[in-house]
Amino acid sequence: MSAVESAASAVSASRFRNTASVIDRTRMHFERAHQRGLMAIYGRSMEGRTVRLTRGERRGDTVADYVRCCYLGLDNHPAIVAGAVAAIEEYGSVHWSCARTRLNFGLIGNLEDILSQLFGARVIAYSTVMIANMGALPLIASGHLTEGQRPVMVFDHRAHASLAFHKPVVAEETQVKTIPHNDLDALEQICRKHPIVAYVCDGVYSMGGFAPIEGLLQLQEKYGLFLYIDDAHGISLFGENGEGFARSQLPRELGERTIVAASLAKGFGASGGMLMLGTAYQEELFRCYSIPHAFSASPNVAAVGAAIASAEIHRTSELKVRQGQLVERIAFFDELIETDQRGASLPIRMIKVGDEFAAIDFAERLLDDGFYTSVTFFPTVARGHAGIRICLTASHNLSDLERLCSKIQSYKPVFTTA
Amino acid sequence: MSAVESAASAVSASRFRNTASVIDRTRMHFERAHQRGLMAIYGRSMEGRTVRLTRGERRGDTVADYVRCCYLGLDNHPAIVAGAVAAIEEYGSVHWSCARTRLNFGLIGNLEDILSQLFGARVIAYSTVMIANMGALPLIASGHLTEGQRPVMVFDHRAHASLAFHKPVVAEETQVKTIPHNDLDALEQICRKHPIVAYVCDGVYSMGGFAPIEGLLQLQEKYGLFLYIDDAHGISLFGENGEGFARSQLPRELGERTIVAASLAKGFGASGGMLMLGTAYQEELFRCYSIPHAFSASPNVAAVGAAIASAEIHRTSELKVRQGQLVERIAFFDELIETDQRGASLPIRMIKVGDEFAAIDFAERLLDDGFYTSVTFFPTVARGHAGIRICLTASHNLSDLERLCSKIQSYKPVFTTA
Repeated sequence: MSAVESAASAVSASRFRNTASVIDRTRMHFERAHQRGLMAIYGRSMEGRTVRLTRGERRGDTVADYVRCCYLGLDNHPAIVAGAVAAIEEYGSVHWSCARTRLNFGLIGNLEDILSQLFGARVIAYSTVMIANMGALPLIASGHLTEGQRPVMVFDHRAHASLAFHKPVVAEETQVKTIPHNDLDALEQICRKHPIVAYVCDGVYSMGGFAPIEGLLQLQEKYGLFLYIDDAHGISLFGENGEGFARSQLPRELGERTIVAASLAKGFGASGGMLMLGTAYQEELFRCYSIPHAFSASPNVAAVGAAIASAEIHRTSELKVRQGQLVERIAFFDELIETDQRGASLPIRMIKVGDEFAAIDFAERLLDDGFYTSVTFFPTVARGHAGIRICLTASHNLSDLERLCSKIQSYKPVFTTA
Repeated sequence: MSAVESAASAVSASRFRNTASVIDRTRMHFERAHQRGLMAIYGRSMEGRTVRLTRGERRGDTVADYVRCCYLGLDNHPAIVAGAVAAIEEYGSVHWSCARTRLNFGLIGNLEDILSQLFGARVIAYSTVMIANMGALPLIASGHLTEGQRPVMVFDHRAHASLAFHKPVVAEETQVKTIPHNDLDALEQICRKHPIVAYVCDGVYSMGGFAPIEGLLQLQEKYGLFLYIDDAHGISLFGENGEGFARSQLPRELGERTIVAASLAKGFGASGGMLMLGTAYQEELFRCYSIPHAFSASPNVAAVGAAIASAEIHRTSELKVRQGQLVERIAFFDELIETDQRGASLPIRMIKVGDEFAAIDFAERLLDDGFYTSVTFFPTVARGHAGIRICLTASHNLSDLERLCSKIQSYKPVFTTA
């Protein structure tokens, strides 16, 4: 089957998107969540994880924030803030408007050198992880990373929106399949049938759970499976140098068949995204042909300066201290609240509610008590599986966390419909 | 024809992408351009438009830069640099890791208010224009901006890569067509055949030229044509408040059928992108459903602070002075060098060469003389139409520009093959 035929059949067999239908099915939930002051909140950071709201009916209120994915509490670290300011002042600019294939701030070259050493990979920085993913997927689909043979591209059903969005683009280049979440058997069946397969998944899933890295490595060993793992939510939380959930479980050499995407924000605490590549050839290809590299700009110099400062923190004992503080808070939460994620060493916890409006009521009650959490509903999670997402961080106050847990316990029987 | 059928037929009728073929056809050009030190250059800003190179064989050299798209010379403006630093220090953070549908820096709300007033539109800020485009196209395709009817989406053949990339995604939702560059007749024929049509184009094209805004407005008047104009390269250069090439030619009220994307970098001089929307309904939809809004983060606070400072400059006479300086430099260049763009009030000039390797030789010779220009070849321009792109700015030194023009004049007969 030619690539053109496969693209056409992939589309006719399964439609990847229907924006109109998503809107029609969810507008009332978005409207309600906005009315209740749960979405599009504006504020400024106060001490620790507290935020003072600067707009809307709750203006002036201070809330404890469990929404930001800054798992190590680095996003208001003085050294990172100072790194950003120093970079801007040293370079006398915030940003240059040109493609990375042309002119770059010298500092971003330094950052990429530092990150490459830190994470044992060839690292390229991007302005966001979303942009890094957009650039990477067509290059994998092209077959140029798999000896000229286009891989069948298999997406985990729960792969992040910034990956799943591009399925139709990837289907222009090769065959696209979607398998149930973490279904290694389904993946192995595809590996048996097709000579070259690439699997696209999250390392740590933004709505709870994680990829079975060990099982994936076994499939790689057995079938040469290519892995593209978006570890935006796993970076910095694991490993001696904070190399993250995925990278810390991979061999010392990434090799030719594994690429890890990760955030320079979230656990890392700065701003932007990155790719960890395994070979000089991959790096050369990405630096010429990745769409954002060729047609968009680099992270700005504040992001670069912040990331260099964070990389320095990653080399000190402070990283281990913060990783430990996060582990402690996760354990503390798990002792008090049962979730599907209980016992996993990851900071995302989902309180199941079921009905979308009930979840909104639940989140509103928590906000009334001074806790800002994420109410999650379709399309972020499946329909009828709405709930509350809690992002734990190293810098959450333990007594505050205890109070949150007690509120969750008291409201859970009232609102849970699932 | 159902949407599913139309998507399938669009794909089988015309293939939108073939990354492998692009790589195979162009690797030798990228390799040569890198070998000659023309791509992936690293440096730091010096006075005016000069840059000192910090890596590679030319390390330590100072070159005059004609690559950056900072047309008003604002990217090293002290007030913009100070605005970025002040914002970081005021907020005690560089960036927050969460979707814009959740928690936002108060400052980005202020920025959006200021830009909305400045440009007579409802403005939403994004981390890049690429990301803004990615979010907008599926929403237009959904039909939710055109009374529930999915428009036929017509792309200009030269629409920027950050638009054309998403054709397969758009084809999942509705029918996609591509017309020759600026072909109003072809567009009108489609408008006659289909009740709802949306046209996707650049305002100012990055490789020279511009959209026929007046003709497009006539089609809008006559057929209700929806317009999505990416004016990344036109922002700030035109209009009382720097509203840009496209917006300055549009009615005072944007209305229900026109959206302008623009850069917060380039002419604007800060970092990030924006959308100018016409209605409260559009704004509500984008703030819930735009993929980057829901699944990626906002521009960082340095970008926001820089953009607020630039917006303030846009309200002063300095804007007019800089717009005038740019006009002067464009006229100066046009008097000395003939290009297809001669006489157009836009700052991008393309020196046609033809053969890719000859264009690389040409650009290398200019770099030897201290002028860094962009050598452009497929896939950025058509095959066999390689050339040199010159980005003029308000802050280029006139005597330096004169020297560049004299070098171009002397080399042009040597290298031109077209």
